[in-house]
Amino acid sequence: MDPNSRELGLEDLPLRDDLRGGTPYGAPQIDVPIALNTNENPYPPSEQVAAALARDVAEVATGLNRYPDRDAVRLRRALAGYLGHGLDESRIWAANGSNEVLQQILQVFGGPGRTAMGFEPSYSMHPIITGVTNTTWLSVARADDFSVDVAEATSAIEQHQPHVVFLSSPNNPTGTALPLETIEAIARVAPGIVVVDEAYAEFRRAGTPSALELLDSHPRLIVSRTMSKAFSMAGARLGYLAAHPAVVEALHLVRLPYHLSAITQSVAITALEHAPELLGAVKQLREERDELVEWLRAHGFVVADSDANFVLFGRFSDRKSVWQGLLDRGVLIRETGPAGWLRVSVGTPEEMSAFRDALLQVTGG
Amino acid sequence: MDPNSRELGLEDLPLRDDLRGGTPYGAPQIDVPIALNTNENPYPPSEQVAAALARDVAEVATGLNRYPDRDAVRLRRALAGYLGHGLDESRIWAANGSNEVLQQILQVFGGPGRTAMGFEPSYSMHPIITGVTNTTWLSVARADDFSVDVAEATSAIEQHQPHVVFLSSPNNPTGTALPLETIEAIARVAPGIVVVDEAYAEFRRAGTPSALELLDSHPRLIVSRTMSKAFSMAGARLGYLAAHPAVVEALHLVRLPYHLSAITQSVAITALEHAPELLGAVKQLREERDELVEWLRAHGFVVADSDANFVLFGRFSDRKSVWQGLLDRGVLIRETGPAGWLRVSVGTPEEMSAFRDALLQVTGG
Repeated sequence: MDPNSRELGLEDLPLRDDLRGGTPYGAPQIDVPIALNTNENPYPPSEQVAAALARDVAEVATGLNRYPDRDAVRLRRALAGYLGHGLDESRIWAANGSNEVLQQILQVFGGPGRTAMGFEPSYSMHPIITGVTNTTWLSVARADDFSVDVAEATSAIEQHQPHVVFLSSPNNPTGTALPLETIEAIARVAPGIVVVDEAYAEFRRAGTPSALELLDSHPRLIVSRTMSKAFSMAGARLGYLAAHPAVVEALHLVRLPYHLSAITQSVAITALEHAPELLGAVKQLREERDELVEWLRAHGFVVADSDANFVLFGRFSDRKSVWQGLLDRGVLIRETGPAGWLRVSVGTPEEMSAFRDALLQVTGG
Repeated sequence: MDPNSRELGLEDLPLRDDLRGGTPYGAPQIDVPIALNTNENPYPPSEQVAAALARDVAEVATGLNRYPDRDAVRLRRALAGYLGHGLDESRIWAANGSNEVLQQILQVFGGPGRTAMGFEPSYSMHPIITGVTNTTWLSVARADDFSVDVAEATSAIEQHQPHVVFLSSPNNPTGTALPLETIEAIARVAPGIVVVDEAYAEFRRAGTPSALELLDSHPRLIVSRTMSKAFSMAGARLGYLAAHPAVVEALHLVRLPYHLSAITQSVAITALEHAPELLGAVKQLREERDELVEWLRAHGFVVADSDANFVLFGRFSDRKSVWQGLLDRGVLIRETGPAGWLRVSVGTPEEMSAFRDALLQVTGG
């Protein structure tokens, strides 16, 4: 390379104006003994599941010269079977992680001159993908307890008429689930698409419902899910959604052809066949989560109710120093959410014990 | 589902206006004895390679609960090693198929109020992805022999000042490669990014150069490649590009975090380790291609020069009936490109023999 052109920087390139000065999204990928920062499931797929996936790939590999099923029909059927609620493949869509699913939704229903509304603090990728698709982001603040006030939400929707509304339940980074009544009230007044991001649905506490129950009565409602968390498959990148068949048809207009590899499709189908085993740790993680919430409260921390596999707690006048103190002790959590709060993912009992010890040391508890 | 909402159609949804009335892109996926319609490599990965991929996945699978390397550094290093030309991982980017690579380029450098220019007939996904990213498409016609006239091209660029210019070499669906002088002349006057789509580069005839040679002297030039064709990995979905490090840095601003699964990364790395074997059929396919061109010409067809693994031939007053006649005989080719022409992918000797027989029957040759 010509030494002069090596010196060329980001600012010399004809980037889109709204990207100038930005930084790529993503938690620091730091190699630490105890990683509790990205809400991963601490339990890997078993040797048996790994062997089943390898057998799959051995078979798929000898046909890799051919393009995959562009419509991923078998996979979508398997996902419908897993979700239940009378769904079939015409009402399911899948992509490389739920981020790609959300991007496709915004490519169809958002875009220049259109708006997407979210209730924050919430998942940071919602406004980011909104921006990448040239949609305008409208942020409405959640209440102090991170709930969504129905009157405020419906009033904001009636005023701004957003083309897409994002709800997260359980919400990241707060852990808070939304009552179905809230989602339904919002779906009733929203003029466009309502997306309920249920990435953490499998971890919700007993009695907390899923918005899947509302799909039949709300044809512009979308429920998005992922195999990253409960299924222990963050590395496999498989997100999906359930919606009205017309919504699924609409997504075909913007999906890149053959967006899901033959291997991803096959691996996800096999994982779904092993759902009972892969989901086996969910109950344990929920119990560990509930114990963590209790322990934190007993030690004087403020903790948001959590229906997810993570807990938002605080409040710290200098959360950065608490985060750093934990990292110095080999425990990586996430500095995210509103000022003064930190988020910790639920790991194994050993990991949580190390987290608790480190936290007491750092906070002098 | 409520029977009334079942009746809801695409037209009832709040789609983006420019998507209304559109149809999803993609060749018909028809089950036929001889599929010569999507430029797939007819030779599957061997049992040995399949076994190596399965071993990989068995290992990766036990860590699937964790997110993959977000920056895919090992894979990008392996791709740099394969391309040579003094490249390293800072100058390589990869995604789920070259379509995703192209979409990311347009998300960074295109967008509302911006333009992308192509020289048509060319790869249909260029204008489609341009549209999905809300970029305006500018089409310039190729000459009758499908070459790009330098004076016309540079004049169109000087007049329209496109933010992104697409060149395909070898070009799909014509097979035509561009001289480096043409690419260089265009890169000199283009005010923004110039993308040379080299999806079929490995099939080019002896003496046809790659635009990789121009990267050092043109920091806004991007060369995109894929493992779908020469590597026999269409099912694995791995596209990539080589460019200036600042371009790669810019793509980080729009890529979805963890867009490449741990399995895709690992499979692609292993495929690159087996490059000599996987690429083993390329020489044979080139010879088969050259023979096909000769045979078609000897039988009175007009044939575009091809540096790819497919051939554009004609001309037919009713190409649809020729296409259908071949399909009726179990041979699926592609009705694409300018009126009167058809495109056939290069398959095995047996497949090409069946194609030739069927073509003579259909055209009464």
